[in-house]
Amino acid sequence: MYQPPQRYLMGPGPGPVSPSVLQASAQPTIGHLDPAFIELMNTVQGQLREVFKTDNAFSMPFSAPATGAMEACLINVLEPGDRVLVCQNGVFGVRLAEMARRCGAEVEVLEFPWGRAVDPQQLADKLGASKPFKLVCWVQAETSTGVLSDSQQLAEAVRPHGCLTLVDCVTAIGGCPIEVDAWGLDMVYAGSQKCLSAPPGIAPITVGERALDALRQRKTPVQSWFMDFSLLGGYWAGSGKRAYHHTAPVNAVYGLHEALSLLLQEGLDASWARHRVVNAALVAGLAELGIAPIPPQAERLPPLTTIGIPEGIDDAEFRTYLLNEHNLEIGAGLGDFAGKAWRIGLMGHGCNLEAVERCLNAIAAGMRKLGRDVSADAAVAAARAV
Amino acid sequence: MYQPPQRYLMGPGPGPVSPSVLQASAQPTIGHLDPAFIELMNTVQGQLREVFKTDNAFSMPFSAPATGAMEACLINVLEPGDRVLVCQNGVFGVRLAEMARRCGAEVEVLEFPWGRAVDPQQLADKLGASKPFKLVCWVQAETSTGVLSDSQQLAEAVRPHGCLTLVDCVTAIGGCPIEVDAWGLDMVYAGSQKCLSAPPGIAPITVGERALDALRQRKTPVQSWFMDFSLLGGYWAGSGKRAYHHTAPVNAVYGLHEALSLLLQEGLDASWARHRVVNAALVAGLAELGIAPIPPQAERLPPLTTIGIPEGIDDAEFRTYLLNEHNLEIGAGLGDFAGKAWRIGLMGHGCNLEAVERCLNAIAAGMRKLGRDVSADAAVAAARAV
Repeated sequence: MYQPPQRYLMGPGPGPVSPSVLQASAQPTIGHLDPAFIELMNTVQGQLREVFKTDNAFSMPFSAPATGAMEACLINVLEPGDRVLVCQNGVFGVRLAEMARRCGAEVEVLEFPWGRAVDPQQLADKLGASKPFKLVCWVQAETSTGVLSDSQQLAEAVRPHGCLTLVDCVTAIGGCPIEVDAWGLDMVYAGSQKCLSAPPGIAPITVGERALDALRQRKTPVQSWFMDFSLLGGYWAGSGKRAYHHTAPVNAVYGLHEALSLLLQEGLDASWARHRVVNAALVAGLAELGIAPIPPQAERLPPLTTIGIPEGIDDAEFRTYLLNEHNLEIGAGLGDFAGKAWRIGLMGHGCNLEAVERCLNAIAAGMRKLGRDVSADAAVAAARAV
Repeated sequence: MYQPPQRYLMGPGPGPVSPSVLQASAQPTIGHLDPAFIELMNTVQGQLREVFKTDNAFSMPFSAPATGAMEACLINVLEPGDRVLVCQNGVFGVRLAEMARRCGAEVEVLEFPWGRAVDPQQLADKLGASKPFKLVCWVQAETSTGVLSDSQQLAEAVRPHGCLTLVDCVTAIGGCPIEVDAWGLDMVYAGSQKCLSAPPGIAPITVGERALDALRQRKTPVQSWFMDFSLLGGYWAGSGKRAYHHTAPVNAVYGLHEALSLLLQEGLDASWARHRVVNAALVAGLAELGIAPIPPQAERLPPLTTIGIPEGIDDAEFRTYLLNEHNLEIGAGLGDFAGKAWRIGLMGHGCNLEAVERCLNAIAAGMRKLGRDVSADAAVAAARAV
């Protein structure tokens, strides 16, 4: 049997998976229409409503990676010619726009500098000065840049214009506040493999009534049968008989259930606070090594810290050193940040002071090897002092 | 942690998962761009080529259930207005046609009676009498009816017309012969949760050069970004640097790797023979209970036996009895066969004489409870005598 190397996962995801989640995923498979599995589906849907803070009946794990869930949300509401506004401040905003174009939608992009949040005022100005949009999309937690945008304020900016909203919460879920109903978000998709500490491959989504109405009023069929929410709703509906649509990834649902149980046991507020505090410890420690996060403090994503690569250090070579000598994975830069930034994840099960210390020690050791005069002890002490 | 009930899975899938596959899936997650994971990707691609009997570089596990892989194959080669012929002899043929219509393709259906194979002569006649088709699709192993069609003969019928071929091998893979290159199949998708005995949620596919050429010559972009083979190829390419496309379901790939290892260790020929023999034992045993398979002998799918529901027996009530009293899952009829047929799966890890005996004993016990004069012992003896 394949034995993967032991890694400390401190990249942009997957993050380390909770041992009990792995154990849950390895429970014997049962039928996807077994009454026991249908009961589990109901339980998981209830858990997702708690985590998303929503009453949306249509809350379920989408049976594919988050990239699939992202596309599913777009194609269910967009028809050829529909106008969509995509706020872009990193790779995943670019991706949203690419996918929306493949729906035949008329896509406008509102660009923000990489490493900065989406600005609610600029969004409001844009919406006020343009023809109406059917849908406005943004990424709450830009995994490519480590930037957190304020979904509550962004949703407020959109509200007077009546557009639907689609929010990427892949790296936010479990790690920073999401309040779907209070903020009035119409569609949200997330990932299993970041702060939920489950394996990748299944993606929580929640869709509100306004978005489902848009789906019901379509003039053209959704271009995908696999991703069609009206068909998926027949399988994952809140109650009644389940209509076979596809075979649910039974074991992945076991794992997600356990991951959501662990999160709800800790409590959402406690988990969000833990991510904030541990991130602050990392930032304090890195400062001792002369390394600073790229985004301004108020726009930093607690679960994922993006830092500039210290001058004169070879990107790939240093990350290979960390992986080979310390079994530590940190993330490369992506898109515009390729070769310019590193991404350090402190997510879910992996978000703790021990991980911070391991990372500081490894980076300091690598820098010392290159002749830099840095002190791991000072970095760790600074982290502990937070 | 969730403890699923212990079930004997003898439905149309998921089938029972090999214990070592579950164990492999529960190994610690590593990064999806970790050099160790990329090596595993290469290994799994090599295993898939062996199992599909192909040299196709584009052989990979698609990161979604087989329903997603089915759609991915269609949308990558079909453009609006393209002519496609779908051979239909069950639910999955109907699904292929529905998906092809959402590509804007001009879909013609060649219908065959439910419970019967796709007839190569009728296919040849149809192709000779019609305007040319870009793509011809059929289901080798119709999971809804337990019918096996002869992909080799069907491919021969298509060859003179030069159309691309797409073959559903979801329930066939590992359980009956598939020879992608020798038979000249252009695209094949399969499932993990049938005769491979892995959890559901990941789908082996293989795509040949002719189909990739059709993709390269498209005038319109593929309607899905997530399913676009040209982008997926950049991530799963045979060699060189992997371009991030989505986060692979790392643990599902561990499981699939173990499942493929078990199959290749047994040998494809041996596995196919096992499925034939065990199916024959089941059929012999059922005959003693007065139950016969629906498809004619030459068209029976060894991993999945479809039988008529014995007269006067309530479908749902009897299956509930089997589930509650014997922890045994058998499948209901699907589509035209709903309420008329049961589907008994003998797949991969679950394809053995012990399962046959368990099933015969449970069905006989249920029938005796309803006052039928049947003998479990006679049924088991008949099965053993095969």
